Amino acid sequence: MEENGYGELLALLEQGKLAELKQALNEKNPPNIAEFFEEVPQEKRLLVFRLLTKDNGADTFSYMDSDMQEDIINAITDAEMRHIMDELSMDDVVDFLGEMPANLVTRVLRNTDEATRKIINQFLNYPDDSAGSLMTIEFVQFHHDITVGKAMEQLRKTGVDKETIYNCYVVDSRRKLIGMISLRTLLLSKDETIVGDIMEEDVIYVHTLDDQEDTAALFKKYGLIALPVVDNERRLVGIITVDDIVDVIEQENTEDIEKMSALLPSEEEYLKTSVLTLAKNRIVWLLVLMVSGTLSSAIITGFESVLASSVALAAFFPILMGTGGNAGSQASTLIIRGMAVGEIAPRDVLKVVWKELRVGIIAGTALGVANFIRILIINDVSYMINFTVSFSMAITVVLAKGVGCTLPILAKKMHLDPAIMAGPLITTVVDCLALLIFFNVAKVLVL
Amino acid sequence: MEENGYGELLALLEQGKLAELKQALNEKNPPNIAEFFEEVPQEKRLLVFRLLTKDNGADTFSYMDSDMQEDIINAITDAEMRHIMDELSMDDVVDFLGEMPANLVTRVLRNTDEATRKIINQFLNYPDDSAGSLMTIEFVQFHHDITVGKAMEQLRKTGVDKETIYNCYVVDSRRKLIGMISLRTLLLSKDETIVGDIMEEDVIYVHTLDDQEDTAALFKKYGLIALPVVDNERRLVGIITVDDIVDVIEQENTEDIEKMSALLPSEEEYLKTSVLTLAKNRIVWLLVLMVSGTLSSAIITGFESVLASSVALAAFFPILMGTGGNAGSQASTLIIRGMAVGEIAPRDVLKVVWKELRVGIIAGTALGVANFIRILIINDVSYMINFTVSFSMAITVVLAKGVGCTLPILAKKMHLDPAIMAGPLITTVVDCLALLIFFNVAKVLVL
Repeated sequence: MEENGYGELLALLEQGKLAELKQALNEKNPPNIAEFFEEVPQEKRLLVFRLLTKDNGADTFSYMDSDMQEDIINAITDAEMRHIMDELSMDDVVDFLGEMPANLVTRVLRNTDEATRKIINQFLNYPDDSAGSLMTIEFVQFHHDITVGKAMEQLRKTGVDKETIYNCYVVDSRRKLIGMISLRTLLLSKDETIVGDIMEEDVIYVHTLDDQEDTAALFKKYGLIALPVVDNERRLVGIITVDDIVDVIEQENTEDIEKMSALLPSEEEYLKTSVLTLAKNRIVWLLVLMVSGTLSSAIITGFESVLASSVALAAFFPILMGTGGNAGSQASTLIIRGMAVGEIAPRDVLKVVWKELRVGIIAGTALGVANFIRILIINDVSYMINFTVSFSMAITVVLAKGVGCTLPILAKKMHLDPAIMAGPLITTVVDCLALLIFFNVAKVLVL
Repeated sequence: MEENGYGELLALLEQGKLAELKQALNEKNPPNIAEFFEEVPQEKRLLVFRLLTKDNGADTFSYMDSDMQEDIINAITDAEMRHIMDELSMDDVVDFLGEMPANLVTRVLRNTDEATRKIINQFLNYPDDSAGSLMTIEFVQFHHDITVGKAMEQLRKTGVDKETIYNCYVVDSRRKLIGMISLRTLLLSKDETIVGDIMEEDVIYVHTLDDQEDTAALFKKYGLIALPVVDNERRLVGIITVDDIVDVIEQENTEDIEKMSALLPSEEEYLKTSVLTLAKNRIVWLLVLMVSGTLSSAIITGFESVLASSVALAAFFPILMGTGGNAGSQASTLIIRGMAVGEIAPRDVLKVVWKELRVGIIAGTALGVANFIRILIINDVSYMINFTVSFSMAITVVLAKGVGCTLPILAKKMHLDPAIMAGPLITTVVDCLALLIFFNVAKVLVL
């Protein structure tokens, strides 16, 4: 059940009823306990943390945000810290250490045994967006020649500490991954069956350096709950579980959305990002777009004589460019998203352009007519000016759809990220087209 | 392992080596078999489909897109169809029927027994975005007073047909959900232990009519692989598994991205959506934005005398409005996304505005200065015009950040979808602000 508000627990804390608080607290889910800590006054957090059972303490710790984790680690003893580190799964340890200042990392590493330290260091070296950075080493592996009975016995003995026991992996004598067996299959098989005989041989896996986006795509395609990770010699080195993939999907979506709005992508939460970083992430693209926007200024300057003879034309710049930009962004958004979720491939380019051309003609005609009526009602301009604006709008919409759908595909073909060919850049391009069309039509019809 | 290209299988098909094809095909994963069908010539699909074992046939069917499913169903016998329907899990049956034409649905329903038909009809009635529409009825439930040994026996007997056996649910004598027990716990407990004594009582669940977005949020928060669904009397009626939630997350992200680009959201794949539907989904917002864009036209018309005395000013409309619009979209995008992933809440409004104000001042100053230099180099206008444009740009960027960050929060507070307060609408608002600032500064400095 979803928990909201922790009034009761806070009351127990304020009244100093620690025994009752301890019991109530330890009955909760670790994600909820971590949420409760947000409400606890800072000076009482250590006190409350020490009320948790050892297991709950470590679990709760893994759900805290990095600031809170830092506070806790700074306050507890080395022995307490060692216990938390032992209980955390390797991916959580690595996530946590990645966010900590250097002196804290040193203290943590000093307090772990050498084997673990070596693994942690190795994990910290995987690139940020790689499969290796997502994996954990708490997996179950069987030798291919043991029996189901032996495998189940091994599971019962070691299963408690594993991230998942529902997918188990089968290796040969050189630790090479050769198969997968689900706990379901084990459970439904006879004790004396040999694991190697009933395992799934067509096992899906990734390499440590594979991209996390491709890894997420495999989870989606095959509906997986876990995926093994192998090294260059196809030796099993870890697994990735679906809960971490859900985070990856959200993160990749955020990145795409940011790029589509002319932002440099950032992994930090908004409220935790410094003002300077936020400003830096935005100024870069604003400058690029400003420089490319110079072209539309130049076009207007070039047609200054047309404008001087009919200043009223200028009133229609915003609506013309606005509609064109929006029409182009719509097309580019659908194409970018379609490619991101794998529904559209670059080879579909002709199908897409043909579709957008027809959509553009329908939308352009509808908007042109609507605009003609709008101007008729609101503005006091000649029919010729009205027609110039409305006709230019219709043509602009058609071209905007064309530009909006081709640029992202072009980017993909050139191995650039299609997401940059979104609203802001499309708008800049369409602005120029809109003005060129408008002035050329005006030159013929209005002058 | 990821499969690409099905040349070998296609060769077997062309050479008519069906026995070999049958064996090779049935060793593949159903998602890959479904992918292979895309490559098979239409007239041979039925032939190939009949080579699949019954289990593989049904599984593969569930991974096909709806056009292919329709082709297959239209071609096979009633007996074959009954078998597929028996093997499919309830959520896949419902997804499939939801896409089929009425006559096909009738044929399928005619061929299922009354009990199943009743359930299917009930499922088809759950609203599109509800938890009920995502759930499946193939779950494992135990009575709270049985022993672990009995529970494991029950699992071995009925587990094959269940969507997941890794999370099992505990109910009382009136089918009320009272707890959850993982297969891991069962496996690590003694046979004579009573399930009710070791189950997790603080079980997280949703109601059939709860929103799918909230449901997905629970999966993310608690790192779940399955979630029980209950009716109004808290009776267990189904479960939702994480693979379906991954699809929901992608779908919700697509919807947000579409709304942020002034598109009516659509659940259909782009390439399968008709031109008319695509046009309709776009024209609505384009019209709304066009009408609201009328205001910026009115502003320009209102300042026509200023413009007439210095036509050169018009050349700076695009770059001023463009930069302002982009700056505003950047802010709104970050806030909309932050609220969507739960990092920003409406109560953070003051923190956000204060942050954006500072970001705006830094970005505005940087862009104003850059623009001044740009104009100095490129354009042949007076210092006063240059200063007017650059100063207006700086002020516009600050205001754009303010508008961009407050409108989405305001929308959220008014229980509207914040995603509509994105680029296109923000741009329209910022256009007006930019023009007002520009003309008023120009009136003082240029005239």
